[in-house]
Amino acid sequence: MTRQLHLNAFLMTVGHHEAAWRLPESDPFAHLDLQHYVRLARIAERGRLDSLFLADTPALWNSIGRRPSGGLEPTVLLTALATATEHIGLIATASTSYNEPYNLARRFASLDHISGGRAGWNVVTTAGPDAARNFNLDDQPAHRDRYERAAEFIEVSRKLWDSWEDDAALGDKANGVWGDDSKIHPAGHEGRYFRVAGALNVPRPPQGHPLLVQAGSSADGRELAARYADAVFTAQQTLADAQAFYADLKRRALAEGRDPDTIKILPGIVPAIGSTEAEALALEEELDRLIRPEYALRQLATTLRVDPADLHLDRELPDDLPAEDEIEAAKSRYTLIVELARRERLTVRQLIGRLGGGRGHRTFAGTPEQVADAIQHWFDNGAADGFNIMAPVLPAGLELFVEHVVPLLQRRGLFRTEYTTGTLREHYGLPRPAAVLAGA
Amino acid sequence: MTRQLHLNAFLMTVGHHEAAWRLPESDPFAHLDLQHYVRLARIAERGRLDSLFLADTPALWNSIGRRPSGGLEPTVLLTALATATEHIGLIATASTSYNEPYNLARRFASLDHISGGRAGWNVVTTAGPDAARNFNLDDQPAHRDRYERAAEFIEVSRKLWDSWEDDAALGDKANGVWGDDSKIHPAGHEGRYFRVAGALNVPRPPQGHPLLVQAGSSADGRELAARYADAVFTAQQTLADAQAFYADLKRRALAEGRDPDTIKILPGIVPAIGSTEAEALALEEELDRLIRPEYALRQLATTLRVDPADLHLDRELPDDLPAEDEIEAAKSRYTLIVELARRERLTVRQLIGRLGGGRGHRTFAGTPEQVADAIQHWFDNGAADGFNIMAPVLPAGLELFVEHVVPLLQRRGLFRTEYTTGTLREHYGLPRPAAVLAGA
Repeated sequence: MTRQLHLNAFLMTVGHHEAAWRLPESDPFAHLDLQHYVRLARIAERGRLDSLFLADTPALWNSIGRRPSGGLEPTVLLTALATATEHIGLIATASTSYNEPYNLARRFASLDHISGGRAGWNVVTTAGPDAARNFNLDDQPAHRDRYERAAEFIEVSRKLWDSWEDDAALGDKANGVWGDDSKIHPAGHEGRYFRVAGALNVPRPPQGHPLLVQAGSSADGRELAARYADAVFTAQQTLADAQAFYADLKRRALAEGRDPDTIKILPGIVPAIGSTEAEALALEEELDRLIRPEYALRQLATTLRVDPADLHLDRELPDDLPAEDEIEAAKSRYTLIVELARRERLTVRQLIGRLGGGRGHRTFAGTPEQVADAIQHWFDNGAADGFNIMAPVLPAGLELFVEHVVPLLQRRGLFRTEYTTGTLREHYGLPRPAAVLAGA
Repeated sequence: MTRQLHLNAFLMTVGHHEAAWRLPESDPFAHLDLQHYVRLARIAERGRLDSLFLADTPALWNSIGRRPSGGLEPTVLLTALATATEHIGLIATASTSYNEPYNLARRFASLDHISGGRAGWNVVTTAGPDAARNFNLDDQPAHRDRYERAAEFIEVSRKLWDSWEDDAALGDKANGVWGDDSKIHPAGHEGRYFRVAGALNVPRPPQGHPLLVQAGSSADGRELAARYADAVFTAQQTLADAQAFYADLKRRALAEGRDPDTIKILPGIVPAIGSTEAEALALEEELDRLIRPEYALRQLATTLRVDPADLHLDRELPDDLPAEDEIEAAKSRYTLIVELARRERLTVRQLIGRLGGGRGHRTFAGTPEQVADAIQHWFDNGAADGFNIMAPVLPAGLELFVEHVVPLLQRRGLFRTEYTTGTLREHYGLPRPAAVLAGA
């Protein structure tokens, strides 16, 4: 069988472009309305996409002026979407720094049961001090500490998911024995960050383990992905960078003793789709014109760790920016932004436009044919196993992608025309993991 | 208008009776099947009940042999049920000892948005060492500590729910200002148990605050209820005890400066319903006969803090049991069980039968007329504002209650015949709380 693409719909309020909410057709409160997400999920499912995905951080942005703010907690929202869909995978972001493994492993196991094996967890360590201050801390833990905790968090979660053998539940009415206690294996975990005694209070999930996604591209993030991730979401601006990232991650997975084909790499793409290239570019320009630069400038200054007064809209970035290893949060995104600005000699205003579309993800304006070509080009050239589709405007952009780009990819034999698999792992061509039993 | 009952459907697997799963009609795996709960929720809604409710503890019971074990996490499950219902309130238990306020306040706010104002939170401190050992501890914190933490947890949650003024979101497209930052009030909480800086990342819930339920009946539990609870679930075996509890709690609420009518007291009742009294008693006997006493004996010994070898099935409880103030978990339930056994001079086997039906809640076998009379008698005599309906077998017992008992209560003018209110608070006749704004 021909190698096929994996496509994930990254959903965000009324679109990834920060000004999408200002378009006449956008409902600025849609992100609080379940029916908006139901509609998006059904569009993605109509397109036979592998999965949909929600980002998250447990803190409110600095300003609610800029764009639709606050939202529904992802594990809860995806459970509602599980009841409105039948096939599509459901991936929620959740933080290892600000959760307890017992609670989170349990919610993902519950979502996996409710959805019939369609749950995925995007493992994040949550950068920045704002979240830390909501959880009894003064500032975020160091980058390395966050990633060590994340690795241990995943280890504990696996022990919990595996704490019931698949056939532990008997339902033996005649003898009055509901389950076989000998098939329960308490986690008995004692580590640096966590002590977790118990078996989980949910039977083993249909998928064994929910699909694990990782999206950090720093060295620590890649190492975590190479050890644990089934899929990686990544921001890559150029083919060369994407190829280097792809090769590096496959190599790291191999070094961890894994089949490199079991880690799927999905760069993001923000496609502005028009029936002509000119129409696509006009949409992108209209959106960029609606950005209020003062908000974006403030955020850019925070990301770059500079004083907002040192950034001038019509000049390039200052020369004296910190080196990546001085950055404690979103390290690789920092480097990507600085390199993008330097490579294309962008003014701050132009950089803000580019970031407003996809926050560092690759923006691409074109016809359906051009978008399909762009996707296939990276897919055929060792840069991607699939894509994270980040429509600039929702639902319109996802609808255009599903109705006009997906059929082209299907005609080229690059994408499924029907769902032929049941679980999210199966959609991604991944096996159900065997249980590692504590004490066995 | 005549004072009316509030009725809550307490759902549990295939029934509250521990042997319900052994009946021929029971699916022993129904508690992992969303459709089972959807069916129950729709039956309860057909009966115009105020709410449904799920208990919870973040640990697996000692043995999975006894009865259906493991289950779906309640906030996640209720979100799925929110999409399958339109009117009924949705109350989930969640622990203040093993959660962080930011995460939990956010999930309840999300559920309140998704359900259009139908979320309720049963605040528990979680007794017992098993849960503690899943959260980095060797044993549960002391009773008093757990309740102090619970009070602070609620205070933080309220600050978070109130951190957005109701009209903070503007959606002003013309000026490109989505929300008014001056209407965001960060919690700024610094307490003994929690430091939480931030504003919540969800706008204020439709109900202002989700309905707060409390179910602890110890002195600490009553005090917490008197300060914060909108509704109280309680286990009461006799009219006299229920009257004393009711009067005490209303008095305590008054002492806290509250209108006693704004705290609704709902004792549990486990109704075995038959078309004749003999048929109802036969159902109860059939269920009791299906109990395997060795499991129940072990749990009773744990509750009573005695060696299982000191309990003899055909004798009464030993004389030298600990006093309530030596008990650190489920204090009032301990006393209730000991008093029940002593008052009725029950053997251990008989006591196990009584507890197998409702774990200390009042069991009642009779015709629909007798059940309606029992409910009205307590309601008319200062013992209850409503009832927590704990069907011994599900869905059958809830169906019988809705089809045969509810119409009697309606005919007597004691219960609504249609939903005339929208939110859970409104169903319970409670106002939407005003926001207390940090820094205002």
